[in-house]
Amino acid sequence: MRKEIRVIQYGVGSIGAEIARLLLQKREVRLVGAVDNDPDKIGWDLGRVAGVGRDLGVIISDDATQVLKTQADVVIHCTSSCLPDVEKQLMECVDAGHSVISTCEELVYPFRKHPHLSNNLDSEATKRKVAILGVGINPGFLMDKLVLTLASACQRVNAVEVTRIVDAGCRRLPLQKKIGAGLSLNEFSALVASGQIKHHGLPESVAMIADSLELRVEDIRETIRPVIARTLFQTSFLEVQPGQVAGICQTACGIASGEKVIQLTLQMYVGAENSVDEIRLQGVPALHCRIPGGVHGDVATAAVVVNCIPPLLEARPGLRITRDIPMRYFPTDSQ
Amino acid sequence: MRKEIRVIQYGVGSIGAEIARLLLQKREVRLVGAVDNDPDKIGWDLGRVAGVGRDLGVIISDDATQVLKTQADVVIHCTSSCLPDVEKQLMECVDAGHSVISTCEELVYPFRKHPHLSNNLDSEATKRKVAILGVGINPGFLMDKLVLTLASACQRVNAVEVTRIVDAGCRRLPLQKKIGAGLSLNEFSALVASGQIKHHGLPESVAMIADSLELRVEDIRETIRPVIARTLFQTSFLEVQPGQVAGICQTACGIASGEKVIQLTLQMYVGAENSVDEIRLQGVPALHCRIPGGVHGDVATAAVVVNCIPPLLEARPGLRITRDIPMRYFPTDSQ
Repeated sequence: MRKEIRVIQYGVGSIGAEIARLLLQKREVRLVGAVDNDPDKIGWDLGRVAGVGRDLGVIISDDATQVLKTQADVVIHCTSSCLPDVEKQLMECVDAGHSVISTCEELVYPFRKHPHLSNNLDSEATKRKVAILGVGINPGFLMDKLVLTLASACQRVNAVEVTRIVDAGCRRLPLQKKIGAGLSLNEFSALVASGQIKHHGLPESVAMIADSLELRVEDIRETIRPVIARTLFQTSFLEVQPGQVAGICQTACGIASGEKVIQLTLQMYVGAENSVDEIRLQGVPALHCRIPGGVHGDVATAAVVVNCIPPLLEARPGLRITRDIPMRYFPTDSQ
Repeated sequence: MRKEIRVIQYGVGSIGAEIARLLLQKREVRLVGAVDNDPDKIGWDLGRVAGVGRDLGVIISDDATQVLKTQADVVIHCTSSCLPDVEKQLMECVDAGHSVISTCEELVYPFRKHPHLSNNLDSEATKRKVAILGVGINPGFLMDKLVLTLASACQRVNAVEVTRIVDAGCRRLPLQKKIGAGLSLNEFSALVASGQIKHHGLPESVAMIADSLELRVEDIRETIRPVIARTLFQTSFLEVQPGQVAGICQTACGIASGEKVIQLTLQMYVGAENSVDEIRLQGVPALHCRIPGGVHGDVATAAVVVNCIPPLLEARPGLRITRDIPMRYFPTDSQ
């Protein structure tokens, strides 16, 4: 009999709910608390809100301070993409003595964009003898951890190219909206300018690769442009007319001595036909790795978060990154 | 300035020599000793034997006991495939206070085939506060570590299939001989029966996957059959006539409740046209990963061995496995 792992779910949106459902399949895990600030969720049982089909005896509360007083091993934190927006939430978890796994994209590799904040989190976690980790499928795995794992089979790596193509037509409505599907070009441009259309995390993946391979990247550049629909697409939620925006093509590059040594490309649009995840390492040996069909973002993000629980609980205290965590599968109860 | 890592090279065959050449590219590494029992190598400088093009001031000796008295951080051990044959060598390294990375295939996951010996090595290494690791590209990476890393993106894994196809025509003569290229069917069968034709390590990969995914595998079955040449093949070293053996097709399966839940296939023969490494995970999500062209065995084995040095030196003392080591790239001096 292994030790029980007590988990608090902080944030019960679509990803948080998917994670909660997966956690219930793990025999060692016990859900002991839930936090969310959505008035439609507060006061309801986590099992009901997460679509488990039964009550768990865990009532969702917006009083994080109170919930975090519960004795627990790890908080699964799924609230927001930008680190400054969640700094206080993470600090409160750590100060309550809990390790944290967060889907906050900027936490996956925060050292370049937020050096001061990274340092604070690392110091505080080290002091409290807990570990913090930012992880998701992208960033956190496909464009960084998997790249670095493959690079362990190389004697030398000179350059890295990763392409992820996702058919957003099969995904949930918030994602289709997040990429601007169905907008006019002008509407799209306005939302990009105001920061409302953007996939977070590409520069974090570039930075993790660059620093880990010592590629001497001094500049990271991002671009976001629309993919325009050529024909009519109808998803379960919306319609995209020819000439309207179908989604995004977003890139982040790492530049070393004027040369592009890292190129990450994310195409996420309604109607994409060749979904794939593809990694190319230039080096000795050169390596080309393809995942035809690509990896489903939401399903796999829940998976990597939950699978990271056992290795994170064995990791050194402090702010950790996926590169240094031996990611593996956390076997499921009913197998 | 990082800490110097002092390395003893134990075994200077073709893989040992490739590793020594790679070690010289790492700024932190200093080669401080070399062991080999080949009379043609004893007394010669490691640099000359390994084809570095210059002397290193490290003379190859067959007196392991003496060489192991050298102060060092890690021994790179490349002598033999079967754990009982190298047990004493490994124990002597550990007793001298050195961590060890070995290419011994059975050390990659020794717990099922050699439980008693595994336990001895683990106890002794723990007592001496050093770590031991068996690693290579196969076993050690392509058919186990990479599989388990990909599985970290799965909510559930029910079955695993891995296929590696290698064109042995591009490889060195000992490998072409090891797979029986150019033999008659009778000669091949005799050498298989006497254990002289066999790739070591497939059952170890099956066992690592099975135990890590908790697939309840109670039986591991191996087969070796010849691949017969249909047309004439000429390598740099030998000729294979139609009807002669071109190489091997070797499989290992993991059986759970009568069902094949793990299937590993290694095809290594002269004239193979579709070199590839291919992983299929049945589960949620299902994942299919292809490395077209495959990964070059010798080049990548040297790479994974050297790249494992920094994480192994940070690992817990004892007998470790690649699953639990965060494998990544060890950056090279001149980059």
